[in-house]
Amino acid sequence: MNSPIAVVLAGGVGKRWWPLQTYKSLVPFVGKPAISHVLEQLQSVGIKEAIVVTNPVDQEAISRLLIAGVNITVVVQQTPNGMAGAVLSAKDAIRQRPILVMNAEDLVDNKLYEVIRSEITKQKPFVVGKKIARYFDTGYLKLRGDSIEAIIEKPGKGNEPSNYVNLVFHYFPDSEPFLKALESTTSDSDDVYEQALSGLCKIIDFHIVRYEGTWVPLKYPWHVLDMMDVLLHAMSELRGKNIEIKSNVVIEGPVHIGDNVKIFENTKIVGPCYIGDNTIIGNNNIIRQSHIGEGCVTGFNTDITRSYIGDNCWFHSNYIGDSVIEGDVNMGSGTVCANLRLDRGEIASVVGDNRINTRRTKLGALIGKNVRIGVNTSIMPGVKIGSGSIVGAGLVVNHDIPNDSKKLL
Amino acid sequence: MNSPIAVVLAGGVGKRWWPLQTYKSLVPFVGKPAISHVLEQLQSVGIKEAIVVTNPVDQEAISRLLIAGVNITVVVQQTPNGMAGAVLSAKDAIRQRPILVMNAEDLVDNKLYEVIRSEITKQKPFVVGKKIARYFDTGYLKLRGDSIEAIIEKPGKGNEPSNYVNLVFHYFPDSEPFLKALESTTSDSDDVYEQALSGLCKIIDFHIVRYEGTWVPLKYPWHVLDMMDVLLHAMSELRGKNIEIKSNVVIEGPVHIGDNVKIFENTKIVGPCYIGDNTIIGNNNIIRQSHIGEGCVTGFNTDITRSYIGDNCWFHSNYIGDSVIEGDVNMGSGTVCANLRLDRGEIASVVGDNRINTRRTKLGALIGKNVRIGVNTSIMPGVKIGSGSIVGAGLVVNHDIPNDSKKLL
Amino acid sequence: MNSPIAVVLAGGVGKRWWPLQTYKSLVPFVGKPAISHVLEQLQSVGIKEAIVVTNPVDQEAISRLLIAGVNITVVVQQTPNGMAGAVLSAKDAIRQRPILVMNAEDLVDNKLYEVIRSEITKQKPFVVGKKIARYFDTGYLKLRGDSIEAIIEKPGKGNEPSNYVNLVFHYFPDSEPFLKALESTTSDSDDVYEQALSGLCKIIDFHIVRYEGTWVPLKYPWHVLDMMDVLLHAMSELRGKNIEIKSNVVIEGPVHIGDNVKIFENTKIVGPCYIGDNTIIGNNNIIRQSHIGEGCVTGFNTDITRSYIGDNCWFHSNYIGDSVIEGDVNMGSGTVCANLRLDRGEIASVVGDNRINTRRTKLGALIGKNVRIGVNTSIMPGVKIGSGSIVGAGLVVNHDIPNDSKKLL
Repeated sequence: MNSPIAVVLAGGVGKRWWPLQTYKSLVPFVGKPAISHVLEQLQSVGIKEAIVVTNPVDQEAISRLLIAGVNITVVVQQTPNGMAGAVLSAKDAIRQRPILVMNAEDLVDNKLYEVIRSEITKQKPFVVGKKIARYFDTGYLKLRGDSIEAIIEKPGKGNEPSNYVNLVFHYFPDSEPFLKALESTTSDSDDVYEQALSGLCKIIDFHIVRYEGTWVPLKYPWHVLDMMDVLLHAMSELRGKNIEIKSNVVIEGPVHIGDNVKIFENTKIVGPCYIGDNTIIGNNNIIRQSHIGEGCVTGFNTDITRSYIGDNCWFHSNYIGDSVIEGDVNMGSGTVCANLRLDRGEIASVVGDNRINTRRTKLGALIGKNVRIGVNTSIMPGVKIGSGSIVGAGLVVNHDIPNDSKKLL
Repeated sequence: MNSPIAVVLAGGVGKRWWPLQTYKSLVPFVGKPAISHVLEQLQSVGIKEAIVVTNPVDQEAISRLLIAGVNITVVVQQTPNGMAGAVLSAKDAIRQRPILVMNAEDLVDNKLYEVIRSEITKQKPFVVGKKIARYFDTGYLKLRGDSIEAIIEKPGKGNEPSNYVNLVFHYFPDSEPFLKALESTTSDSDDVYEQALSGLCKIIDFHIVRYEGTWVPLKYPWHVLDMMDVLLHAMSELRGKNIEIKSNVVIEGPVHIGDNVKIFENTKIVGPCYIGDNTIIGNNNIIRQSHIGEGCVTGFNTDITRSYIGDNCWFHSNYIGDSVIEGDVNMGSGTVCANLRLDRGEIASVVGDNRINTRRTKLGALIGKNVRIGVNTSIMPGVKIGSGSIVGAGLVVNHDIPNDSKKLL
Repeated sequence: MNSPIAVVLAGGVGKRWWPLQTYKSLVPFVGKPAISHVLEQLQSVGIKEAIVVTNPVDQEAISRLLIAGVNITVVVQQTPNGMAGAVLSAKDAIRQRPILVMNAEDLVDNKLYEVIRSEITKQKPFVVGKKIARYFDTGYLKLRGDSIEAIIEKPGKGNEPSNYVNLVFHYFPDSEPFLKALESTTSDSDDVYEQALSGLCKIIDFHIVRYEGTWVPLKYPWHVLDMMDVLLHAMSELRGKNIEIKSNVVIEGPVHIGDNVKIFENTKIVGPCYIGDNTIIGNNNIIRQSHIGEGCVTGFNTDITRSYIGDNCWFHSNYIGDSVIEGDVNMGSGTVCANLRLDRGEIASVVGDNRINTRRTKLGALIGKNVRIGVNTSIMPGVKIGSGSIVGAGLVVNHDIPNDSKKLL
């Protein structure tokens, strides 16, 4: 048998990802990028070869990834021409090989990888179907028994052909028919891949691999919190080198404390928490279920709860609840990222022209890189602040702020 | 001798009580309603029978009161027709009995009850007169020696007939003449009771029982703080069942800690304080001379000083000074109830059409039930917020907010 | 040899000093006024006689100064007629004596005093020249070898005659020629002294005493921070009488704790710090590299960093960074003195009609005496608030506030 090769799609750029700048698969979690967590799972079930399709910008960073036991080839998708284009970028490397097409930043249970490994040995094409309870806008599987008849994109609530949605773990025992289908399919929308696959289902028998476990994609910026939560709970406790923990610090639950971290007096850390190298946690802080990157300083009297903080952020007497802060962000004393609506409703966020319900009742701010915010400012739940922006003191920020803005009044 | 019966008036509804909703005599203090404290005092001097006159709404709650050693009959005053109507509602139960008419929520020293008990044995009618230093708008006793000639309502400053005001502890060895007087008196104002009593003074000799001790009525909402203060100082220390007190918590002075209470690290509690069952006091708090109801969560870094907090309130990094918060109130991080005027003057409060001087230099907010307030909001001294209201983030609230309002800007 | 006499100029009044009211040489540092530190340095090198020239207002305070080993004569300069007038006010006391003219509040290294003492024994006139790296508007020394040819006032950047500026340590072995020069010089500007000295340099040989050490003048209010910093680092540790330090207080580095000081739980003090008598440091504070006067109360959860606080100030949950607060100031809960521009630039301050670059990237508020500020107010870096002012709640203060103002909106 020809050994299978994973085609890992890390190439698309999503405007729904704004204000985050770091490409999804490169967002660091507990010390390594999202894609590394995925590749390690692949490796753990014995898939030893992977082609990562990425964009020109991220090529270099992706090329630096080293995963023990996985032979990684990086392929650049020169133009952003969708999933179909991504797979076709890799066609020379995958001709006549069994391929598993998958996303670089969809997080699923290890168990699913074991099932996939076992299914692959049967050398029959399959698509993983994720069972879901509540409608959302994605591709649904139309089934006849275990066979997939078609993939129906965004059927609309009430018109779902099944309660399984298409999860991008697509296995082809031979890549040829699919590559040909991709080449011959045309579409006005960005769905060549799905149409090609759906068409192929009419010719070849694809069966469903049913899955009911965790599925955390990175589509919207608040998904960082979901992925953080899964990876924090899977993380091991660690005490790095040269750490300094002052008197009356309480640490509960699993906490990763990186090298050279200092934690000052009267601070409590409730795990699971990740604290990156060279970070300083100030006096009288409370840090709960959060991820704090490298080189941060939390200052005096800060409360960080269920939040993702990237590298090199400076805080001082802030409350940061259920927020994503990408990195290189400074916040003045008394500034608060509110995380609850006063009516306790689900929090919306404007994405492009649409007002998206995040389905979260707790969500704080979503802040890009290199943002500076003054003192005593209040950032309302779900607000996004673009990178490079300056936000003044004493403001109530209840609308998104574009990149490189200066908002002082 | 016919044993005396207390007629405890718990029936009126006062608009001056807004924004509080709980009827005055039912406001809980240190675990039981105000009226229970009063009835226990009665019981302690051997008055074993009481008729409580209440309104239809509170009938059920009043009926549930159990005071060991006091036989309580609840009478409903169907229409809000004043004190006269209240006493007349009970007339069938008190005919030809010696009666002591009193309010359900006037708090006085135990010593006065002892004096009353002793006076009652003389079987002569009396009215308790409270000696006061500074004029305020109430009924004054016009005296000739120890005899009361009349009760002068609101005589105006400088026209006081004595420095004793009418305190509603009125003893009639036989209820009949007073019931008749009540029935035959008419008035355009809400003062039938006072006129009937004043008229009776001209026919029968009422003597004054002079009193110089504590008198705490519940008339305006800030009076809750006065009553709280008295009852906290009288309260016993308690450690409830199943309490959890984390490291480095300092508790000074008498503190009642209810069942299942948790107190987190680095918090200081300065008694006298009452903390109701199932309440969680967060990390790095300071709680001083305050009353906190059941099921509250104070969150991280909150300062509650000389304040009354009802049940089920949630705080987070707030300062609450000299405030009354009725219950089911949520406050966002950084919100402050200011308790001092910048000019250090006495704090005024608008009640109906009048601007009342509260005579307090320290007074925070007065907040009804079911109110939600955003982050970093500043509530000015003496401001009242009606129940069911939502108040946004980053505001300076310097006017009262009616019930069920939505104030976001 | 006639023993030298120091003529210490403590007389001028500077509008650049606003909003501070205390005259510069009387600003207390670590328990005594600035001038006392200077006089003690004089004493340490054996100059035993000093004439202090002051203004009528400060005469009494200056007269109370007692410096062991220094014989102080106070002379009043009746009209504010500059340095020349100041020296001439003292002429009767200094005739035919060797004199060292100097300022009452210029702080320099002890080493310079030793050099001066040694130079004086040579009985040749000299002027101390301070070597500087960056141009600023003051008098520059025009040199020929070690001889001073002239003093060039504000030559403009690029036109400096040397990189030494005139430091007011001017030695005259005989006062007569200088007194005569002062009396015969006229000028439209306030530079009679400098012109007289410059003219004298053409007749008599003045040599330069070169100096490269610390020089901290008190010219602008933020200079208080520079002087504080020098004097805190020179200060000795002390634990006063009757102090009370509660549990879990951490004190690091040299800290002067005055008599009757109380420090409450969970507070950290990072020296060098000075805490004056009768001051109360509240719970959960952090106090770093700061000077706090007598009779202050810092309240709960306050952060005072690199700041000068005068006597009788009350705080409560404030952040005060790199600020000067003269005394008798009250600040409401949550109010912040921001100390960094969002663009990290150097902070400007308007002085009279000019916008001065303070050359500081960290500078908070500069607040005069008897100021009251509400809750949750944000004071922008470099803002000055005049004495007697009231500043409301929830404000962003980004302009100076004159004396005796009421700013509520």
